[in-house]
Amino acid sequence: MDIQKILRGKQEQFETYIADLPRMESGTLRDAMAYSYLAQGKRLRPSLFLLAAETFGADSQDLLPFAAGIEMIHTYSLIHDDLPAMDNDDYRRGKPTCHKIFGDGMAVLAGDGLLTEAFQMMISIRDIVEPARLLGALEMAASHSGIQGMVYGQSLDIEGEGKPLTLEELKTIHYYKTGALLSFSMASGALLAGAKEDEVKAMDFYGRKFGLAFQITDDILDATGSFETLGKPIGSDQKSHKTTYVTLLGIEGARSEARKAMKEAKVSISKISRDLAVFHSLGKYVIERDR
Amino acid sequence: MDIQKILRGKQEQFETYIADLPRMESGTLRDAMAYSYLAQGKRLRPSLFLLAAETFGADSQDLLPFAAGIEMIHTYSLIHDDLPAMDNDDYRRGKPTCHKIFGDGMAVLAGDGLLTEAFQMMISIRDIVEPARLLGALEMAASHSGIQGMVYGQSLDIEGEGKPLTLEELKTIHYYKTGALLSFSMASGALLAGAKEDEVKAMDFYGRKFGLAFQITDDILDATGSFETLGKPIGSDQKSHKTTYVTLLGIEGARSEARKAMKEAKVSISKISRDLAVFHSLGKYVIERDR
Repeated sequence: MDIQKILRGKQEQFETYIADLPRMESGTLRDAMAYSYLAQGKRLRPSLFLLAAETFGADSQDLLPFAAGIEMIHTYSLIHDDLPAMDNDDYRRGKPTCHKIFGDGMAVLAGDGLLTEAFQMMISIRDIVEPARLLGALEMAASHSGIQGMVYGQSLDIEGEGKPLTLEELKTIHYYKTGALLSFSMASGALLAGAKEDEVKAMDFYGRKFGLAFQITDDILDATGSFETLGKPIGSDQKSHKTTYVTLLGIEGARSEARKAMKEAKVSISKISRDLAVFHSLGKYVIERDR
Repeated sequence: MDIQKILRGKQEQFETYIADLPRMESGTLRDAMAYSYLAQGKRLRPSLFLLAAETFGADSQDLLPFAAGIEMIHTYSLIHDDLPAMDNDDYRRGKPTCHKIFGDGMAVLAGDGLLTEAFQMMISIRDIVEPARLLGALEMAASHSGIQGMVYGQSLDIEGEGKPLTLEELKTIHYYKTGALLSFSMASGALLAGAKEDEVKAMDFYGRKFGLAFQITDDILDATGSFETLGKPIGSDQKSHKTTYVTLLGIEGARSEARKAMKEAKVSISKISRDLAVFHSLGKYVIERDR
């Protein structure tokens, strides 16, 4: 199974759908949102959402608006994270960051707009999904991306800045900051496709572990990759004396930690009686990715 | 009818409910959110929401979580609006602004957290409201507070900064920036209580006009009020050479414009066959308020 090809396929399906988003009158706010939202990205979260939905029998084409919402949440978090008040990053996805082009104030609003529009997009499938099920998925969106999820993780990240962290603290930050949105993507795809509660929970757990492995390889890439493949400056973690899996465990130790996380992820979904070949192959992808 | 007393009653009902919000583990993020969310405020939007819901026959006690969500959206918009990247305000509700106490980065996250938690709170009444109706109210939340509403208005406001505006331009900015959230508060209260589509629309229109009148008196208060009653520095509009209803129309001209808006608001709800005494009295309140 060529997992890279499958992910590229999902990415293309998604890119075609979002080409004219966000839907609003033209102007600076729209330009700022579109600048970041339509920038070349891996589209990993919506792709995983679509793959999870297909795994549980849904026609992923119907669920594209919800996928678009997930990527809006991800994009808003990047825009706010890059602000001078937060990580103060100048490059993202190979281009200057949103605030570098549109100013800090408009970047704050572009993020706010994307987060709110994300809910608008997710709610917009209300005619094709059972309302109570959609409400469950929306509840999951809020809890995983908010103060019990991603935003909480970002606050821990800010507070930990400049301090040496233990492995346990680092894992906690990433469990919320990166893991929550990835697990939401997979669990909500399953839920909207009609999966049972324990299947949704298994996908959620899988997503958390996948997120951990993904974050570890992110740290490895920051230490070993290049600007050309990553679209952002490399070595930035080292420069800012940030604790990462690489500083704590070394390259090889970090890689083995990522492998362990993916093994646990696979075990968690082993009881689901669906064709899970795609999710089994994701482990290979996440360990070996070079961007 | 003593409308001030009625509003105080709703405010107290609301304050009692939100005392232990937001629900999350303690830490800096929670502190920053609670600092702004629990600061003494008029609680106008949740109060109007509760009054609208009661007008159409709902038990407002049941809908308090939704009201809490509305005020979270309002509070997040104030926190982000006060940031140095936006209006750069030092005082709000009689206290230093959120970023002055917790830093710019944490203030960005406190706003993001409140916006996301707002949806969580609104969704949490899903067991007591018909799911399709709740989805309608959530759709209204996203459209009125996002890029077709409040956030759009804030982007116009930023772009208009430092430029002289026409009365038409000023009205457009406030239609979105202030009017959208006020109209959402009243229309969603009606919708969740079971009001018919045309009644919801009438309440929405009422809210837009009420919002206009409210913004006009805000400008009047900025020119004539005091720090003690407003909890923020006065004369700030004049200092920043901002176009306001007062600079365009003078105090008396602005007051007459506010009266005209409230007259139109009243007409819009005249066909609703419910006891609307509260909403008829609101006109007097908004014109004569001193804080």
